[in-house]
Order: sequence, then structure tokens, then C-alpha cells
Amino acid sequence: MLLSKLVCERTKEAPQDAKIKSHILLSRAGFIKQVAVGIYSMTMPCQKMSGKIQKIIREEMDALDGQEVLFPVVMPREIWELSDRYNTIGSEMVRFKDRNNRDMLLGMTHEEAAVHLANHIVSSYAQLPMMIYQIQTKFRDEARSRGGLIRVREFTMKDAYSFHESKEDLEKYYYRVFDAYYRIFKRIGLKRFIDIKSDSGMMGGSIAHEFMLLTEVGEDSIVLCNDCDYRANMEVAECTLDTPAVGEEPLQLINTGNDKTIDEVCARLNSPKETSCKAVVFAVKGNSEEVVIAFVRGDLEVNEAKLKKVLAKDIVPYDGGVSDVVACGNIGPYNLDKSIIAVYDKSLEGVGSLVIGANKPEYHYTGFNFKRDMKDATFHDIAKVKEGAKCPVCGGALRIENGIEIGNIFQLGTKYTKSMDMTVHGADGGEFNPIMGCYGIGVGRAIASIAQEASDDKGLVLPMSVAPWQVHICPLRLDDKNVEEKAYGLYEDLKKQGVEVLFDDRSVGAGVKFNDADLMGMPIRVVVSPKSLATGEVEISVRASGECKKVAYGDAIASIKSIIKSQLEELNA
Amino acid sequence: MLLSKLVCERTKEAPQDAKIKSHILLSRAGFIKQVAVGIYSMTMPCQKMSGKIQKIIREEMDALDGQEVLFPVVMPREIWELSDRYNTIGSEMVRFKDRNNRDMLLGMTHEEAAVHLANHIVSSYAQLPMMIYQIQTKFRDEARSRGGLIRVREFTMKDAYSFHESKEDLEKYYYRVFDAYYRIFKRIGLKRFIDIKSDSGMMGGSIAHEFMLLTEVGEDSIVLCNDCDYRANMEVAECTLDTPAVGEEPLQLINTGNDKTIDEVCARLNSPKETSCKAVVFAVKGNSEEVVIAFVRGDLEVNEAKLKKVLAKDIVPYDGGVSDVVACGNIGPYNLDKSIIAVYDKSLEGVGSLVIGANKPEYHYTGFNFKRDMKDATFHDIAKVKEGAKCPVCGGALRIENGIEIGNIFQLGTKYTKSMDMTVHGADGGEFNPIMGCYGIGVGRAIASIAQEASDDKGLVLPMSVAPWQVHICPLRLDDKNVEEKAYGLYEDLKKQGVEVLFDDRSVGAGVKFNDADLMGMPIRVVVSPKSLATGEVEISVRASGECKKVAYGDAIASIKSIIKSQLEELNA
Repeated sequence: MLLSKLVCERTKEAPQDAKIKSHILLSRAGFIKQVAVGIYSMTMPCQKMSGKIQKIIREEMDALDGQEVLFPVVMPREIWELSDRYNTIGSEMVRFKDRNNRDMLLGMTHEEAAVHLANHIVSSYAQLPMMIYQIQTKFRDEARSRGGLIRVREFTMKDAYSFHESKEDLEKYYYRVFDAYYRIFKRIGLKRFIDIKSDSGMMGGSIAHEFMLLTEVGEDSIVLCNDCDYRANMEVAECTLDTPAVGEEPLQLINTGNDKTIDEVCARLNSPKETSCKAVVFAVKGNSEEVVIAFVRGDLEVNEAKLKKVLAKDIVPYDGGVSDVVACGNIGPYNLDKSIIAVYDKSLEGVGSLVIGANKPEYHYTGFNFKRDMKDATFHDIAKVKEGAKCPVCGGALRIENGIEIGNIFQLGTKYTKSMDMTVHGADGGEFNPIMGCYGIGVGRAIASIAQEASDDKGLVLPMSVAPWQVHICPLRLDDKNVEEKAYGLYEDLKKQGVEVLFDDRSVGAGVKFNDADLMGMPIRVVVSPKSLATGEVEISVRASGECKKVAYGDAIASIKSIIKSQLEELNA
Repeated sequence: MLLSKLVCERTKEAPQDAKIKSHILLSRAGFIKQVAVGIYSMTMPCQKMSGKIQKIIREEMDALDGQEVLFPVVMPREIWELSDRYNTIGSEMVRFKDRNNRDMLLGMTHEEAAVHLANHIVSSYAQLPMMIYQIQTKFRDEARSRGGLIRVREFTMKDAYSFHESKEDLEKYYYRVFDAYYRIFKRIGLKRFIDIKSDSGMMGGSIAHEFMLLTEVGEDSIVLCNDCDYRANMEVAECTLDTPAVGEEPLQLINTGNDKTIDEVCARLNSPKETSCKAVVFAVKGNSEEVVIAFVRGDLEVNEAKLKKVLAKDIVPYDGGVSDVVACGNIGPYNLDKSIIAVYDKSLEGVGSLVIGANKPEYHYTGFNFKRDMKDATFHDIAKVKEGAKCPVCGGALRIENGIEIGNIFQLGTKYTKSMDMTVHGADGGEFNPIMGCYGIGVGRAIASIAQEASDDKGLVLPMSVAPWQVHICPLRLDDKNVEEKAYGLYEDLKKQGVEVLFDDRSVGAGVKFNDADLMGMPIRVVVSPKSLATGEVEISVRASGECKKVAYGDAIASIKSIIKSQLEELNA
């Protein structure tokens, strides 16, 4: 490909809304162009990258006996009513009426379509296990799309659906997909990724895993153990702490004046935050008079996801005005208004002596002890894990990192086959609803993740397996007949040998060419210049390592092919 | 692929609404499953076919220096307002509001998106000519989707957009794409296809061609010359006829009683229909009082498309009630009410003596002569070509066939670059709007066209280049150890050699296996049975020719590969 003809503009500046590296670099390298909020066009380099990622995904899905199919983007309301998701999914699902006034929707996932396709066709246990997958456009009307291709509204996704006779068979297959996902992410060149167990959320079902790329710009917080392989999403990570070693003391009402925050009160009392009790106020969503107060140790924060689970209710921040107790500020568990829903974190259990609010202005208690003073209190895990907390598995120290979700897999169970009435004949003559798993990878998200991780100050550093072109030839002084002949000669010869080459045929200076090559990030750069040719050589450099060597012109192809081979082998190892 | 595991159900019956062969066969072979009217899921065989067609299209587009990109399915109103198509396209375009109440639409074509992408990036004439293309899902809310994949609402389409400095350059490139389209259709195995010049319709621009598969189930009528290569869509085909050899006669008012139709009046007067004048009544759309009467020779029909073009107005059938002249029935050109818009077909010009309605009950004129009796009449080509009419090029006899549109190409001009303000620096330092061409092929339509043409009474007869699998192995009596070993051995060995194989591993009789193999239409069938193995042989048959031969087991792979090679060579020739 001649760079002068490539519809792809490199720029010094990124769009104003580009805050993170992948968004900045994919924009600056001209790989993407925004059409509307969260909606992008992809230029050739990006689409080539997408194609290579898709090919790797296909190979891994086919190796699991996956059957590639195609479901529609636009679906009728009817099949989504069977699963009840037509009514339960919010405005992130686009709904519209067709010209005959029928309710239609844009698919943001395809469980219903998968069951619709398999239903009746798969009628015997002997046809199981079976997996169908597609790579198709999806639309999810995200409230806050952000980060370029990280969180968009329209995206290309591989989604796969497996059907099984038994839970055991699903689990066996599920972990085969799990392994395939590791291979896929490794093969496309990602490095710092992990799997974590997750909630299955709106998908229904029980066991689920997210695959996460660890990166500081990730929007998810992940808790990892420094010593063992424990890891969990912050939303579900267990918070385990040593109980502060303080003995029992008598309960005492103390005037604390206008000091209200944990910091102020602990400072006044010269008491560590670990033996104080923090109150955080919420209201039940949809009923602002139903007040919820979460109590955690003074050095911790409330994990709203875990709190919601304990309550089995959705909550929102309390916006004031209803409760006298809340208005006074010094909220504590002792003698709390019975109309308030109080939830106690397990970090408070067993602490010999706590500083707590007294539920009246200007007063706190010291020496509060749950076991002695509030025998009937029950405790739940509702605190956010903090850096250095104990690993619930090995007791080691936990750390917190950010991550981007790059894939997810779910054991769905029979939610969809039951609601859509898909039955299969069993070996015993009876009928059963097949048990499903589903497995997603976003292709655009993968591109963004690669750009985020495989990049440096100068630009992209694309992995050999997914780079649009393997080689970027920068001829310097194309007006020099010898350079012209040798550079184009190398270009044509490489192409003949099946090597993918981008050729910078522009009449611009070396600086511009090198900057663009660095920005676009092809794995190998070849410089052909009057200077190098003076000794009959060309300069071959590896973008990732920075390694650069002069090679005799006649040996260039062999040298390039050997770099390609070894880089691909490493990725596929 | 093991047939027992394939999610694809063969049936004896097709869905009730399946009327044409491709719909019936693709349904019966289990290639497609309807999700809603005009919306289908594709099973693995169909999706594999789609992938192979896409690969061929990509190869041909890349050979034209096309750059594969990806435009969004969902687009914002804004870019479609620039071209004014947001307002001018009717309800076939799906419009909806996103969660932020912004107007969005589903792309049914991507001229706007193409200009949006290229704008600013392509800024110099030196970057031209340039072509970008995508293969992507489109949605068009057809009022009457029909024929399975022939006319659907959601479809996968290759759409390409080229940009040029001059009209000459566009034309040069346009005809390169034209040639590529011939190669594509040939390579995917279509046989009876032609190109015809067409109206560019809502796309704007001037020259355009449609590629048509000639088939009796086609919804377009095509006029072809038996002697030269003239062909045209019925909508625009020129109707040229010999003028009937009748001399002038005096104008005479004749009582024709209650005879009103051409047949009745000509029978009464013992006069040929070719010298009578038929009147067909329309009203201008949106104004039922504006009556249009089209006059054609009695043996011809009115071509409404040509009539609309002459009027430069849209028309609808007249539903009666306004005009006295029309009410009386015997309508003729002579002394016609001046308030009526009359259009005369050129078939009437120069006829020496015509029978015409007298515009009053029970009377006709004979001996009417336009030149003599209505000097100011002007004539237009508004008649439908009829079988046997004269070719306007060579004078040969025309025939009429039906066709399915399988592709189209347009010289768009600057409609989109002008309205979207895309300018490029010229060699002379000035700025200009690039001239565009656009080029479409529907992938699903191509699948249906192949199924329509490449099929027989028993089922599909898929071309080697696009068949999901090249070989279909039917082992008979898999419970026979020797058959089992040899059949699976052949299956594995063929796969190792890169041959794509479908293996019927079911415990069903030979009849069921052969029927399914015929229905699904893979190009080569291999039968491994106790009988064939008794002489150390297998049976290899070619689906297209019916040719069948016994080959020694050890020679089977070589024989199969040679058939594949020769069939592919023929398609790619």
C-alpha cells in the first residue's frame, strides 16, 4: 500500500475529547474518525487490524467446533418478550417501529436470536454439545460513551452461544472457551490481562468470568493478591481485615462539639480511625423516605454493589430532608430510629471499643461494643477492599488495579431455553431444556486495548499478528534513482513473498516519515537511503525493541521474514 | 464438519410463503431461518457461502486499489441532512431517536458516510483516484420483502465509493469496476447475467448500470435484442415499431354502440388493433382533478416510468368521477377537452388512418390522421416494448426476459461532495469537488441468485468457489468396521490437505443421505460403502454433471483434488 494514497490522516493533535492514550493514538494515527458520539468510521488500517483479530477469534472458535452463523441486527419485539428482556432492559436498547408499526429493536446481545435459531433444529441430546457464534455489528445506546473505541455505542462483537445436556458438560466446555480466550488475547498481542470471576448481571445464570486488561485508564477496579492468584472485581471482592487489638471499655457519652467527620472526631479524641464507626446514608431507589444507613469502620468506604446485594434493593445517595437523625449528623448504631434500615459491616464485629455517633447534635459515644451493647446486630460484608487488606484466600496483601473488560463468558443455565420453550429429547426418552453458555469479545474494544497497551510516547507499537502491515518502508530521497529503484524493488519483492508492506512514497523529509512510522506503529521499519545504499545496505529496525541493524540489500527480505516469523511464533506460543 | 452436529435442518416442505426456487431450496436445505418478515438468520452453510463470496469481492476490490473501511450502521441525522436525503427518502429508511433525543437512522446506503470519512483526509488531487469500500449490514424497510434472500429488509452489502479529479478519470475507473463486476459474478458461479444501462434514481448522477441475473422469477423486465447486444430495463427500453402500411382515409364518425374496448371496436369495424388508438387514464399524484390521458397504439401498453419522465410528474391510476370525457368511455385525441393533459406515443405518429374514440357515447372516428387532423400534436416514447418489437440499434427482434438485480454501479457526479462541502486542491492550485462513483453488490442477493440458477429438481448445485464444503462424504453402513475406518480416514486425510468436507455420520439409510446431499448441493459427493470397498474403491460423483466414477481408495484424494482444481479454474478463467 502506498501511503500517499491511504485514506488515513496523521495529525499532531488529538480531538479535544480524547483523554486516554488509545483514543489519542488511534485518532492521531488516522485509524478512526468519529461520526457521532460513540459512533466511528474505521479507515483501512483499523479495518485491517479488525480483520486480523476476527481471523484469530474465528480460528479459536472453530477449534472448539463452533459454527459461524449470522443473526440479524434488527429483531422483532416478540422473541425478546419471551425472555422478558424487551421490558426489563432500559433505554440502552434502541427500540423503533417499522413501517407497518411493528415494534423492532437493535440487538445488543443475541441470546434470544441464538435460541430462536437452534430451536427445533437441535432436537436431540446427540446433537449436543453445540456452539454457534457470529461476528456482527451491535448497538448499545450507552449513556456515556467514552475513550474512543473503549466504550462506544456501535461495535463489532464476536458472540458465541453453547448448548449442553448437563451442567457438567457446560462446565467442561466453558473452561475450554476460557482457555481459548487466553489464547486469543495472547495471540492478538495483549500482555497484562487476567480473568476474574464476576456477577452475571442481566445475563441471568450463575458462574461468569470477565477478562480484564490491567491498565491505569481502566474503568473497573480490580482487587489482586500479591502472593496468590486471588483476584476479584471491586464490586464483589471480599474485604477481610485484622480486628484492631483494643479491649473493652465502658460506654461513655462525650461532647464532641461541632466535630462531625471521622477525621475531626478521631483527632479530638486522639483515637485511631480503625476503631471508629462511619455512617453513610442512602435512600431506596424510588422511595426517598426509606432511608438506609451503612455502617463501616472509619478507615473504610462502603461498596455499594455489595450493599445492594445485601438489601436486595437498588439504592441512591440520600439527598436529605426526611430524617431527623440524618439531619443532626452524628449518626451511630446505638438507639438508632427503628424506621431506618441499618446495615453493619463485618469490620465492626468484635471490635472491643468503638467511637460512634450518638444520634444527637454535638455528641458521640466512646467504648461502644456491638456484642455487649447491641446483641442482635448482624454483620455483612459491605466495605470496599482497601490497598493492603488481607487476601481472603492466603492472607497476603491485596492491591488494587484498574482494568478494561476485554471479554466475558457466562454460564447462563436454562433462562433462555426455558422461557423460549426450547426442548431437546434426552437419552432416556424424556425432554429437557438445554443448558447454555455465552461468550463475548468486542473487536473494537480489543483494538483499543492493544493501542492502550502496545504503545509508547511516539505512537502505536502494534503486535505482528494484528498490525495492518508487517513492514513500513521509508525510502529517503526518492528522487535519487538508486533509492527509487531499490526501495520500490524491495516493496514489490516483499509483496510477492506475501509480506504486507506500507510504502511511504511521499516527497517529505526523513523526520516526517519517521514520525508517521512511529505513530502508526508497524512492527518493522525499513529505511532505504542514499547513505545506506552507499554500502549496499538498508536499515531494518524493530518498533517494539528499538533494535536497529544494517543489512545487505540482498539479505533484507530474508532478514524481514525471519523477524516476522519469530515475532509470530512468540505470539502463538 | 460432521453433519449430525450441524445446526441446519433439512426439510421436505418449504415455508408456506416460499414461492420461488431459491427461497424454497435455501429454506429446505436449512441455510436460512426467518426471524421476522424480511429478516433472516443464516446457519453455518449459508454464512460460509457468504464468507466465500465476500472473499472474492474483496479480492476484486483490492485489485482495483480499493481500501476496505467500515462505516457505521447507525448514523446521525446531521450528515444526511447535508445531502437532503434525510428529508427526501421515505419510510424505507428507519429513523429513531437515541436516548438523548437525537435523530438517528439506519444506513441503507453510505454515500454520506463515505464523504464524511474522506472529507479533509483527502485534500489533494494527488491522492485521487481513490476508492473506499466496506462489507457491512444494511437495513431498508421494504414495503414488500419477498423471495427469501431476494428482497429482504436486513442484508449484507459491499458498497464502494470512488473519488476522482475529472469525469474522464471517473469513467475510466467506472469501467474497471464494471469489468471487475463481471469477474465477480463469474467467479461466484453465476452464468446468465448481463449488464444494462439504468436510471440512477435516488442516487443522483447520470450514467448507471445494473447487473441482472436472467431468471423467470426476476421482478424486473428486461428487453434484449436477439441479434445485437442491445438490452435495457423495461422502464427505459425504447419502443420502435414499423408503421402499419395503411393509406389516408377521410375522417368519419361511426356509431359503435356499446362497444368500448379496443378488442370490441376493432372486431366490429373489422380493423387491426395496430391502427387503433388506446387511451389510458391517470391522475397527477396528489391532485386527482388533474387528469392525464396517455394515447398508445391499440396493440401496445403504456410504460408508466417513461410517461412519468415525459410529464416530469408522478402519476397514479385514475379513480373516476371528475371528467365527463372519461366517464363517457370512448376517449380519443380529436377535440379532447383542453383541461386534460394528453400525451401521444410515437407509435401513433405517421399512421395513415386510425380508429379513435370520439369523446362521446356510442361513437368512434375512423380515418383519423394526426398529421392532417391535429397538426400541433407532439409525440413521445411512452409505450412498453412488446415481444418482437424492433431493436433501436440494429432493427432485430426484441425479446423480454425477467431478471434479478445482482449489482449496480453509478456515476454519481458531485451531488454528495458538493452538498457536504468536500473540496480538494487541484494541480492548478484551485479547489474542486471530487467526482464520485458508487458500486454495490448484495451478498445475500448473490446467495439467492446462485441458489436460483445453480439448482435442479433435487436441490442446490453449488459452484465450487462458493460451496460451504467442497466435498460431501456419504458413508453407507458406518456400523461396518471397514467402512468406518476408510470413511473417517478419507475425511481426516482430505481435511489435512486443506479440502473442506462435510461428513454424513448419521445412522440413516442411503436414500436419506443421498437426498440430503442432493438438497444441500456440495459439488462433489463421495460414497464409501461395503460394496465399493469390496473392490477397494469409493464412488465419486460430481453434483453439477451427474458424472459418477469408481476410484481406488488410494487415488480418491488425488481424484477429488483434481476435480476441485479444474472446477475452480473454470470459474476463475
